[in-house]
Amino acid sequence: MNFASDNAYGVLPQVWAALHAADQGTALAYGNDAATKDLATRFADLFEHEVAAFPVFTGTAANALALACLTPPFGAVLCHKDSHIMTSECGAPEFFSGAKLIGLDGADGKLTPQGIADALDGLDGSVHSVQPRAISVSQATELGTVYTASELAAISALAKDRGLKLHMDGARFANAMACLGATPADATWKSGVDVLSFGATKAGALAAEAVVFFDPALASEFEYRRKRGGHLASKMRFVSVQLEAMLQDDLWLSSGARANELASRLAADLKQIPQIEIAYPVKTNMVFARMPVEKAARMRAGGAEFHDWFPPQKDGTVITRLALAFATPDEHVARLVELAKEK
Amino acid sequence: MNFASDNAYGVLPQVWAALHAADQGTALAYGNDAATKDLATRFADLFEHEVAAFPVFTGTAANALALACLTPPFGAVLCHKDSHIMTSECGAPEFFSGAKLIGLDGADGKLTPQGIADALDGLDGSVHSVQPRAISVSQATELGTVYTASELAAISALAKDRGLKLHMDGARFANAMACLGATPADATWKSGVDVLSFGATKAGALAAEAVVFFDPALASEFEYRRKRGGHLASKMRFVSVQLEAMLQDDLWLSSGARANELASRLAADLKQIPQIEIAYPVKTNMVFARMPVEKAARMRAGGAEFHDWFPPQKDGTVITRLALAFATPDEHVARLVELAKEK
Amino acid sequence: MNFASDNAYGVLPQVWAALHAADQGTALAYGNDAATKDLATRFADLFEHEVAAFPVFTGTAANALALACLTPPFGAVLCHKDSHIMTSECGAPEFFSGAKLIGLDGADGKLTPQGIADALDGLDGSVHSVQPRAISVSQATELGTVYTASELAAISALAKDRGLKLHMDGARFANAMACLGATPADATWKSGVDVLSFGATKAGALAAEAVVFFDPALASEFEYRRKRGGHLASKMRFVSVQLEAMLQDDLWLSSGARANELASRLAADLKQIPQIEIAYPVKTNMVFARMPVEKAARMRAGGAEFHDWFPPQKDGTVITRLALAFATPDEHVARLVELAKEK
Amino acid sequence: MNFASDNAYGVLPQVWAALHAADQGTALAYGNDAATKDLATRFADLFEHEVAAFPVFTGTAANALALACLTPPFGAVLCHKDSHIMTSECGAPEFFSGAKLIGLDGADGKLTPQGIADALDGLDGSVHSVQPRAISVSQATELGTVYTASELAAISALAKDRGLKLHMDGARFANAMACLGATPADATWKSGVDVLSFGATKAGALAAEAVVFFDPALASEFEYRRKRGGHLASKMRFVSVQLEAMLQDDLWLSSGARANELASRLAADLKQIPQIEIAYPVKTNMVFARMPVEKAARMRAGGAEFHDWFPPQKDGTVITRLALAFATPDEHVARLVELAKEK
Repeated sequence: MNFASDNAYGVLPQVWAALHAADQGTALAYGNDAATKDLATRFADLFEHEVAAFPVFTGTAANALALACLTPPFGAVLCHKDSHIMTSECGAPEFFSGAKLIGLDGADGKLTPQGIADALDGLDGSVHSVQPRAISVSQATELGTVYTASELAAISALAKDRGLKLHMDGARFANAMACLGATPADATWKSGVDVLSFGATKAGALAAEAVVFFDPALASEFEYRRKRGGHLASKMRFVSVQLEAMLQDDLWLSSGARANELASRLAADLKQIPQIEIAYPVKTNMVFARMPVEKAARMRAGGAEFHDWFPPQKDGTVITRLALAFATPDEHVARLVELAKEK
Repeated sequence: MNFASDNAYGVLPQVWAALHAADQGTALAYGNDAATKDLATRFADLFEHEVAAFPVFTGTAANALALACLTPPFGAVLCHKDSHIMTSECGAPEFFSGAKLIGLDGADGKLTPQGIADALDGLDGSVHSVQPRAISVSQATELGTVYTASELAAISALAKDRGLKLHMDGARFANAMACLGATPADATWKSGVDVLSFGATKAGALAAEAVVFFDPALASEFEYRRKRGGHLASKMRFVSVQLEAMLQDDLWLSSGARANELASRLAADLKQIPQIEIAYPVKTNMVFARMPVEKAARMRAGGAEFHDWFPPQKDGTVITRLALAFATPDEHVARLVELAKEK
Repeated sequence: MNFASDNAYGVLPQVWAALHAADQGTALAYGNDAATKDLATRFADLFEHEVAAFPVFTGTAANALALACLTPPFGAVLCHKDSHIMTSECGAPEFFSGAKLIGLDGADGKLTPQGIADALDGLDGSVHSVQPRAISVSQATELGTVYTASELAAISALAKDRGLKLHMDGARFANAMACLGATPADATWKSGVDVLSFGATKAGALAAEAVVFFDPALASEFEYRRKRGGHLASKMRFVSVQLEAMLQDDLWLSSGARANELASRLAADLKQIPQIEIAYPVKTNMVFARMPVEKAARMRAGGAEFHDWFPPQKDGTVITRLALAFATPDEHVARLVELAKEK
Repeated sequence: MNFASDNAYGVLPQVWAALHAADQGTALAYGNDAATKDLATRFADLFEHEVAAFPVFTGTAANALALACLTPPFGAVLCHKDSHIMTSECGAPEFFSGAKLIGLDGADGKLTPQGIADALDGLDGSVHSVQPRAISVSQATELGTVYTASELAAISALAKDRGLKLHMDGARFANAMACLGATPADATWKSGVDVLSFGATKAGALAAEAVVFFDPALASEFEYRRKRGGHLASKMRFVSVQLEAMLQDDLWLSSGARANELASRLAADLKQIPQIEIAYPVKTNMVFARMPVEKAARMRAGGAEFHDWFPPQKDGTVITRLALAFATPDEHVARLVELAKEK
């Protein structure tokens, strides 16, 4: 029973079908195929806006390449101190952009306008300091929380006011959108987002993410930077059709929604258990449950795989992360709750 | 009829089978799955030597990451002036390693010991100059030629003598090996190769290459650099099992051999045609045919896709590249010859 | 009356004398002159230990090049969040090393062992995270405070325990040593410091700093990195003899001591003034004085130049920085106190 | 008797005077002093054109920072294969810009329009290739030769036609101008030069070069990149006044002219000696003399220091470089000729 990662499950049938359909005859290499060329149109339809959209294999590549288009090497990107780009990409955003990431505090894994404003005011505007050029928000966050429309609008307004670009790390964009219920347009460019890392892998693709620029002019360097980063696939069509399949009939969204529902159900059940406390609002597909270290150990002994998300506390409890995926079986969730109830 | 690239064709059935087989239940993400952990053993069996082996999606990533493990930022890598790393990776090796690529002349796309020695002697050994640290050979080369065992031995001896590491870009290693008929061990570490970019995509994988270190100590930084480059796949098993399938029953080798045979046959037939001249020895899966510009145009009009490899010459001829792949249909080759014969 | 920076004053007579003495006949360029070759011996005498020592023009170059010798590009350097390398070098340490700087809290501008340990424990040790490789302390700090021998020993012990190298930014090493009264050996390698940026410019050189490695093996890449960074002076002797002059008869130390004495005197006098509060312990050559914004304005109107060090507070006060230098005239200090006393 | 380098001599009296004059009272640090602020005006007067001008300590820094303002990391800079930026800066231009340097052949150390055009035509314009963005010429070249006005105009016309910026490495600009006799305006922006590395150190400064942008808009990132590179001097006035002194009464030019005259005289005398041959046209301050290896050895034994510029040839001769400087004594030149005449 895998609750360790939403990457633990495999590939949706519709994605397999698209992959096989793409394996007919020949196609031009390196993205000159029809599916890749069509991708911008597909994303434009989804977002109701002209876009430039580029497939890559990994979320880290998507984020690092997107940010490299937003900042010079002497720039700075403001992000949450616990964000994926700050803690879990081994410095990829810095490597690709040259810029400095400045990690800020904020409850529930979310940046606040005040936190951003304070950080900006604290930066010496002179040549001695890196120059702020972008803000990066994660939607959903590493803690499974979601920026509301108004929270995002406030950050976006600040970004515009200070001349900063706004990047959204959407590795779990599907889960966030299933929570928000907004249109993709409302949740992105209408909320001031300049570039989105659109995640499909966690939602059921094999290996496919897209970098979506709502202002195509910002993408002028993207293709060179992607090639230079070794991220231009020779048989690109097999990446592009995964994205195509995920967009078809909003498969990405229903996939995210199912994972969210499982998380919501799991959280509701766990909440009833005396020794367990839900640490953050459960908005998407992850449940952060504080429980006694021994209980976590027993649940693992019972067959559940999951991570401690922070080091154990002195009171003998630990915050665990229970990740739900598009393909997590219902019975696994039920069984996990049973394990949690055992004394 | 696609003769433009050996990336134009899709995926071998055995690779599809392996991909589907990997889509069972869950697996640990980021390479902690069984297939990935098993990969070093598979390559060790192939090469009859302990290795460290790492899957990546693209050949450019393989080359750039391999070289970054061989040279400091102030180092230099000697390679052929027409090699892929020099001309066709948009600076990726320099980006990942920081080092300078020094491109050397050499007939048929191959480095020579004399050329390397002259270049090394020409480098000021002082702090003002980049410091030579590695040589990179392509096996097969961009011109479809192959280093013989003795040619490679001579380069390797020089490398050892000068304290340089030896990298082999094996994007078309399958084609080279099908030509050489040597054992993989003889063709690599026994010939002094330190690191190999083992290509599988051109031979019929979807997107899978491996970086194979014959001295695992050289790989100490690889995993960090791969992650930092955005090349660590979350659902890594789907890359690893492609490689596994290609290694099974030497599928990679028979795939390369078939493409080579087609090329050999095509070259033999084209050679008979008065206006056509074969520009380089046909050793692997590519035929470089010099022909009148008008003939090339007529062949294209007849349905054949292929590239001019160099700009047209003043005598009205052009050197075209005709690439054969594991899946090129026999009848396409026959039809191409017919087109070539037309006046 | 300049209290804005200890860089505001010029050059000591002894440094001028050394510069002129060096302008005799010819010398080998790029550090092959006698003075530069002799420098390691001079620093070895000072520190009672074998060293490798390299002159550069600026403190930022010294820090960035030193750190680049301690960490790979996927590494991390732990430092105070308000340290010069973190806030005031426009990302130079990251540019030269590729590594990430992780800024930590700590009272009076100083790192604490607990803060460092917590940060290290918070770092995911996996490939997803940058790998901690070095700690950088500033001696004296940006707030003019100084690590005591025991504070440094505790940090050093932790560094050794965790396998981290220890760098000391000694742009104001002279001021720190004048405060500590320890031997240079005790304050550096005997306290576990691996590399020191030895500052001479603020103490009265024209433009000269030295990177001093107490383990010469760590310096193996230094000269290449210095050249590659454009920091290898052609007429290097004119940098080296500045350092020589500063070391002669401990000129560096007496220079630092004088600035400290002025600061001590100034702080004592300002402390008597009702509206003024000394914000941090005055250990070296800088006085951070909290005062009403209007008072600061009046003092400036009276002819004193100095910086607000933080943005003004809501209570109408601001923390100003009053920097004293080796050449600040006594009467300027007296006049500043008078201005501060005016209502 | 030093003929090894034009960096072997020290500092002109006028530069010393300016340095001492600058050591009065205090000045704002980091280039906010009056002399630095005035520098653009001084250079604007010299070049009869609005400029942005920035002092740095070294020629390598000047070149690397200038080029970093002209090209993105995926760009390419075309230069002579024997140019200083290609062979003698340990990769600094690549480090600062990220771009690739493409070294071209050309007689007497000079690029030709045809060579440039061929190289550009040979570059695949696709995303797989680095993108040409700049040409860099050295004036004077490493071989002491000089581009004529019409040669430069032809290269410049090609650059404009192909959308490339034109950089001039003027480490020996004084020597080149003394040879050309043109106005600085004619020799630079009127000839299409976008950015000049204006060298003063070889002409008699202590350590001072300037990056001069003839289109100030190109300089928008310069100050951040300089700081990030560790090249922003704290006591900047001491760099700026060196440049000021060199510009005053065209001291730079007369200094270059004197070195040229010595070289001209030396070449004329050496040419008379049977075993000696002048290898390149002597246009500036360097004489490349081919002579028997034994003769070179004897001249060194007689007290002359100079470098072999290329490895000895099979015929027993070697091309030596004899560098003349602003301060080389006349009698040293005479004595060198005597030594050369000895059998």
